[in-house]
Order: sequence, then C-alpha cells, then structure tokens
Amino acid sequence: ATTFRASEHQHIRYNPLQDEWVLVSAHRMKRPWQGQVEPPLLTTVPRHDPHNPLCPGATRANGEVNPHYEGTFLFDNDFPALQPDAPSPGPSDHPLFQAEAARGVCKVMCFHPWSDVTLPLMLVPEIRAVIDAWASVTEELGAQYPWVQIFENKGAMMGCSNPHPHCQVWASSFLPDVAQREERSQRAYQSQHGEPLLMEYGRQELLRKDRLVLTSEHWLVLVPFWAVWPFQTLLLPRRHVRRLPELTPAERDGAPMGSEAGANWDHWQLHAHYYPPLLRSATVRKFMVGYEMLAQAQRDLTPEQAAERLRALPEVHYRLGQK
Amino acid sequence: ATTFRASEHQHIRYNPLQDEWVLVSAHRMKRPWQGQVEPPLLTTVPRHDPHNPLCPGATRANGEVNPHYEGTFLFDNDFPALQPDAPSPGPSDHPLFQAEAARGVCKVMCFHPWSDVTLPLMLVPEIRAVIDAWASVTEELGAQYPWVQIFENKGAMMGCSNPHPHCQVWASSFLPDVAQREERSQRAYQSQHGEPLLMEYGRQELLRKDRLVLTSEHWLVLVPFWAVWPFQTLLLPRRHVRRLPELTPAERDGAPMGSEAGANWDHWQLHAHYYPPLLRSATVRKFMVGYEMLAQAQRDLTPEQAAERLRALPEVHYRLGQK
Ligand SMILES: O=P(O)(O)O[C@H]1O[C@H](CO)[C@@H](O)[C@H](O)[C@H]1O
Ligand SMILES: O=P(O)(O)O[C@H]1O[C@H](CO)[C@@H](O)[C@H](O)[C@H]1O
Repeated sequence: ATTFRASEHQHIRYNPLQDEWVLVSAHRMKRPWQGQVEPPLLTTVPRHDPHNPLCPGATRANGEVNPHYEGTFLFDNDFPALQPDAPSPGPSDHPLFQAEAARGVCKVMCFHPWSDVTLPLMLVPEIRAVIDAWASVTEELGAQYPWVQIFENKGAMMGCSNPHPHCQVWASSFLPDVAQREERSQRAYQSQHGEPLLMEYGRQELLRKDRLVLTSEHWLVLVPFWAVWPFQTLLLPRRHVRRLPELTPAERDGAPMGSEAGANWDHWQLHAHYYPPLLRSATVRKFMVGYEMLAQAQRDLTPEQAAERLRALPEVHYRLGQK
Repeated sequence: ATTFRASEHQHIRYNPLQDEWVLVSAHRMKRPWQGQVEPPLLTTVPRHDPHNPLCPGATRANGEVNPHYEGTFLFDNDFPALQPDAPSPGPSDHPLFQAEAARGVCKVMCFHPWSDVTLPLMLVPEIRAVIDAWASVTEELGAQYPWVQIFENKGAMMGCSNPHPHCQVWASSFLPDVAQREERSQRAYQSQHGEPLLMEYGRQELLRKDRLVLTSEHWLVLVPFWAVWPFQTLLLPRRHVRRLPELTPAERDGAPMGSEAGANWDHWQLHAHYYPPLLRSATVRKFMVGYEMLAQAQRDLTPEQAAERLRALPEVHYRLGQK
C-alpha cells in the first residue's frame, strides 16, 4: 500500500472550532492555470482626495462633513444593515418559517487620515491607536449587544471599492451563525477537557511547528490545520484572553485581532481570522463556487504548504521593496 | 409600536434544511451603488473553436482528442480534486487534528456540441438528454459512492473561463459537509413529523404563494424563505422523489435538478439549489465577504421581493429578445 502524504493524497480535515469539513486536494496545484486573471492592484492612490467620503474634511452621502481627523475616525455607517430599533417579526406560525428580531449598530472606522496606506504600511504607534479604538468600541457596544463583529473588506476582490484604510464594526442583538458554532464548540471542549479549545490548539501548533507562520512573545500566527482559503491564517494570543479590552499594553503593540462578548465565556479565546481570496498570486484568486457552495469547501494546497510559503515571504512589504 | 414589515425591518431567518441563519436587511437596497461594476457578459462566443478543449474534435490538456460528439459528452476531469485510490491518513493522534480518507471521481459533462448556447437556450429534447445523462451518471457513480454532486459554475463571476456549456460531477466516498447538514435536518424532521421536510415545505409555499417563481404540473421553483444569495432559488419536484433516476419521463421533460444516494433515504427530497452571484443587475454582484465569512450571511432584499422580481421577468431569454 502507498504511504499517505498530505501534499499528494487528497483527504478531508475537520474544523473543530466551526464544526465543518474541508477537502484537501493538493495535487490540483499541478494543473496549468487557464482561468481568470484579476487586474493588478491599484498602487497609485492619492494621499488625499476631497471627493472620497472617508477622507478628513470630505462630505459623506448623507451630507455630514468629516472632521479633519488625525488618527482613527469612527462614525455610523450611512447605510447600516443593522439598526437599533427594528420591531420584532412576532411568533412563527410554522417550524419551517422561523424569523426573529435583529437589532444592532453598524459603524465604520477609518484607520488613518491618509488614503495611500494600509495597516501593514502604518507605524506601530498608529496601528496601536487602531487596536485601542477596537478595544473601546468593543467595550462600548458590548455593554448593550452580545456580539461585536469587527471586520475589514480589503481590496476590490473583496467588494471594497474605497482604497482608504478602514474597517467596519457591526454589533448585533443576536449571536451570529459562525459565532454560534464557535460558541458551541468551545463550550463543549471546555466542559469535556477542562481548558479552552484554542489554548490547547495553540500549544499543539507550537509543538508541531509545520503550520506556524509567525510567533512573538505575545502572539501566534498560523495556517489552521482545517484552513479553507488557500492562505487563511489564524491569529491567537499566547495566554488566555477572552476579549479585546483584556489585552495588556504590550500585547496591543503586538498584532491586531477580532472580538466577542457575554456572560461566562471562559471557554472563549480571542482570535482573528484572515481569509485572503488569493490562490496562486496577487492576480489569480481562489473561487469558492459550485462544489464549495453546494457540497464542501475544497482547497488546492495543504495548510502546511501554505504556511511554508508564507514563512518564506520577505519581511519587507512588497510596496516598499518595489522602488 | 411600529408594525413589523419584512421589507423595511431587518430580522433574522432560520434555514431548517442547512441549520443556518441569515440576516435580512432589505432597507439596504435604498443605498446608492458606488461599488464595483463587472464587465458586461461576453455575447460573441464562436459556435466552434478548435482550440477550446471542450469542443468536439479538440485536443485536451492531457493530449486526448474529444470525439465529434453530437449530444452530451462525459469525460474524466484532467485535474480531478478527487481520485479513486488515495491512501488513508490513518488514525488521528489528537481530537483537534482529525483527518480522514477521501476517495472519488471527478467528471466533466458537456451539454451540447455548440459553445454559443447555454441550458436555457437549448431545445427541450436537448435539455432532456442532459437530464437523462445526469440520471445515468448518478446511477453509475452512486453504485460505488455515497454522494454524487452535480454542479455548474456558470460565467466568469463564478470562476468559469470556458463559455462552452458544461457541468461537473464529483462523486465522493464521504457525505460532504452541506449534504451532511441536509441529511441531519431531513432525517430529524421525518422522525418528528412523519413526512419529508421538503415535501411539507413545498406544500406550504404553494399555499403562501409570495415566494413562488414558477409552478408546473411536476415542479416548483421558489425563492426559499431563508435564501442567502439575492436571487437564490430552489427547484423541487411536486411528488416525493429521492433521486434523479426515479424521475419519470414526463418529469424529466420538466426541469433540471441535483442528486444524492444511500440506504434508507425516504426523508430525502430531490432538489437543486441555484445561487446566482448577482445583486442589482447583470453587472452588479453581491459580495459575500467580511460579515458573511466571519459572522453570518446577510442579504439586502427580502426573498419575497426577489421572487416578485423573478416572476416579473419576461418569458423570452434576454439574448433572444435583443435582436
Ligand atoms: O472548475 P474548476 O476550474 O476545476 O474549479 C472551479 O470549481 C471548483 C469546484 O467548485 C473550485 O474548487 C475551484 O476553485 C474553481 O476554480
Ligand atoms: O461594506 P459594504 O459596501 O457596506 O458591503 C460589503 O460588506 C458587507 C458585509 O460583509 C456585505 O454584506 C456586502 O455584500 C459587501 O458589499
């Protein structure tokens, strides 16, 4: 019988955090690429554009004028998917037709007054200001809502047409679907094994090493064993931290992350998911389409191969290396 | 208190088939569109291109020459994500690192010898040949594999760079993730209510009417109550049919559909999911990005509004109405 090699033999892997399976078919990377090629990234973004609604001093769609902000800038999304006062749909009349109330708040946070930077191009104190702003918006909205989701849609491939560096914060009166799955898994793991799932997972990855991308005194970055996106990574603090506001000043100078809130959440471990849409290069993306939507996520290189490629990347940001 | 109106007030809905929630924020459609606009569809595809590997008589990447086929044409995918003979990864050494064997077969099926047609432009007897071919490939691969997934990635937005009308058939030794969820839900519903979930669901939608798109003697097309994609639809046979090969000749002349296989599957109802990537028009797509990937699916118009727009579409295919 042939010996199993993950990089040659397709197999399925289980994601214990989100209770999902992924098909890993690394041999697919051998095929020639005949598919779609994306336009190269826009590199000539003006530092300030008075017509860009995210710039300091610009007028937004609703007529409000932005302040001449110099650090981060947080404001209410002009077209929020979640509003604080929606009435309840009332009781369901049939088990197959269940609707429930949804209330919340959507905010936008600009990271920097300049349009021509992104988080990795900002200075550590500037990034630290973003992390502090994430911690305080989590605290503020978390006082009222059980879930505060911070996310960044970055680049045209992710549907973001505004190059100005910014993220969104959506707080909701309900635990969203993915958070519910992570809640269930982490709660069950803690009650069975007596410690948080992601604490044990981080420890194991430190021992196994082949999926690690970066480690620092306070943080781990790794390609999860069950990664779905080709270069998906997971950011984890090295000690048990449930929420952003619990991070120490030294940890905040380390790296960015997501958020959550609630009652007894000792089974939770703060973490951030990164899902870059790329497959082979900056212009060849991974399409999660027919099989993925109808059947199961499928990836074309192993998480270990992805981690190796990510580790081998230069320390210098590609835009700074260019000139 | 304000009266709840689904088209004005955000709320969440439950998908009892796949055990998932979706956030419905219909008021979002009021915002002006400033985002990405896709290139218009290619309408000038040559009927025959000797360099297109899917055309009759063309040479494929592996050197094989296609026959001069006149109807459908089924062949093995040259770069299959699933192969019949992968060894097993062996037992897991830790509950957070679980991998299992995956075996299977990937096939490609051309629908027609011409590159310039799509299913809706084909004649009924030509479509019928496709459905018969789906039924027989399901029967053939279903004898060996528990799941046979038929899917079509249609158009550049869905990562399909070859305009020649074709679909894929991936059979696997495991029940894929989505199928597992549908299996669990349908089995539980049948044991609790004594009838298949989708039979009761179809009956309810026929009574409620506002999500119906098309009904015929044998089939229903509707926008599910829990639809995630803006114009997602579900195709259901009107009687209890578990698998494609069980369809009668009259039903096969009706409409196309997906597939499944196994032991006692009386709780299953054959169905096809359609997930068009569009939001506002043929060139403005829906991006399922940050919030959807990290938290929960979110849609910008209600399923009822989508059904209304779909019902109002002309009977004539847009390409035929053009000239
Ligand atoms: O049809 P292809 O080119 O083999 O592949 C396409 O469909 C597959 C199944 O949905 C996806 O995994 C790929 O990312 C996509 O590019
Ligand atoms: O940031 P926008 O433009 O409001 O919206 C973008 O992110 C949202 C949250 O992930 C998605 O629902 C939208 O489809 C996407 O276009």
